[in-house]
Formats: sequence, structure tokens, C-alpha cells
Amino acid sequence: MNQRKALILFAHGARAATWAAPFERLRDLTQERMPQVPVSLAFLELMEPRLPARVAALAAEGIGHITVVPVFLGVGGHLLRDLPLIVEQLGRDHPGLAIEVAGAVGEDPGVIDAMTDYCVKSAGGA
Amino acid sequence: MNQRKALILFAHGARAATWAAPFERLRDLTQERMPQVPVSLAFLELMEPRLPARVAALAAEGIGHITVVPVFLGVGGHLLRDLPLIVEQLGRDHPGLAIEVAGAVGEDPGVIDAMTDYCVKSAGGA
Repeated sequence: MNQRKALILFAHGARAATWAAPFERLRDLTQERMPQVPVSLAFLELMEPRLPARVAALAAEGIGHITVVPVFLGVGGHLLRDLPLIVEQLGRDHPGLAIEVAGAVGEDPGVIDAMTDYCVKSAGGA
Repeated sequence: MNQRKALILFAHGARAATWAAPFERLRDLTQERMPQVPVSLAFLELMEPRLPARVAALAAEGIGHITVVPVFLGVGGHLLRDLPLIVEQLGRDHPGLAIEVAGAVGEDPGVIDAMTDYCVKSAGGA
């Protein structure tokens, strides 16, 4: 099995172009940390590229294993229903490709700790 | 001027009850770090309490200064348009109250660093 790997950071998308900035920064920083694995962004809606297009492009480049990290704060309908349906369809469209979905970024204890620091700092606290 | 302070963590809300969990954890951790300032959640839509109701309750308790931290990953229409309109209306409804809005959690460099760590870890990287 082809084990060339890629990482996709999967975000919601928005009409406002300003929305993408922190996700692009996250992609760049992640890519710097793992130069051997291609890291790209994909969106659920309103922004391009969408996840199916990004996965198709990576599969065409010969990638055999994709990890999808949902860059969402919480687990709502998009991660409970929309993403599993998209990934199910991608499995049918690309039978040789392994797609693994990580937990939501916002549920990671390290991320929650950093958000806590930011909230305390914003309130002028210790 | 009344300077009793409070902190509101302002999140999007979702139909799925699972959505609230990381925000509740964030609220609890932030409250632990600054026990002298009441910390509460408020939502833009789909979940309760909404921001105007939470602000009204705090004002009725004698709070004079509220910091609102948007627990959003990026800055899209909700923070560019919806939140400023809500805060403007709150200013009219509560003329003695000072309301300060912080930057989005997802744009904080410390939060982006922690998300980077999580993405690298999820990809099985260094």
C-alpha cells in the first residue's frame, strides 16, 4: 500500500476573507514543523478548496494516506454528520486511499490550556 | 463608576449538545485561574444563554465592566458584523456599563502554537 502521507487542516470557511488568516498561519507553522509531509487547508463551505477537491488533488499526486484534522472548536453537526458523510463518499471515490480523521482541535487539552491563558490575559487577570 | 468586573466567553452555539463541552471546560479553567471575577458563557445562536440575556443578568447583579472574549477561531461575519451590532445595542440598553471586546481566541499566537502542536501530533509527526 502506498504510504506517502499528507495532512489536511479542515476548517469551516466564511464569506469574509479575513476568516482564513489564522488557518493559513496554522498551516504554515505546521508545515514548518514537518517539512516531509504536505500540509494543506480545506474548507467545508464558503471557501475554496473544499475537502473533496483537495483530497482528489493529493490522491492524483500519489498520496496514499491522509490525516484530516478538524480545525473546529467544538463538535457539532458539521463534525457529527457533515464530515463523516464527506469522508464516506471520499472512501468510495478513492478506494486505495486511507483517510483518518483526528479529534477537533478545540477539544485538545493543550489548546484549551492556551485558550485559558488568553482569556485570563484578556480579562486583565494574572 | 462601578468597576466590578466580569468576563463573558462568547461562542457560536450549535444544535448538538456536544458542542458546548470544550467551552464549558474553558469557562471552568478560566474561572479557577481568576476566582475573583465571574466567568460565564454566552452564545450567538442556537444555545442559551444569549449574550444580551447574560449581560443583563450581570448588570442586574451590579457588574460595571464586562470583557467579552470571542471564542471563535477566525474573524468572519459573526465578529465583523453580528457582535458589534449586539454590543452597540447593549450599550444603549445599559448606559452605565462598560463593555470591552477582546480579539478572537483563534488569532492569539499562543493558541495558534498549541493548535500547531496538536496538528503535528495528529499527523504522527515530531
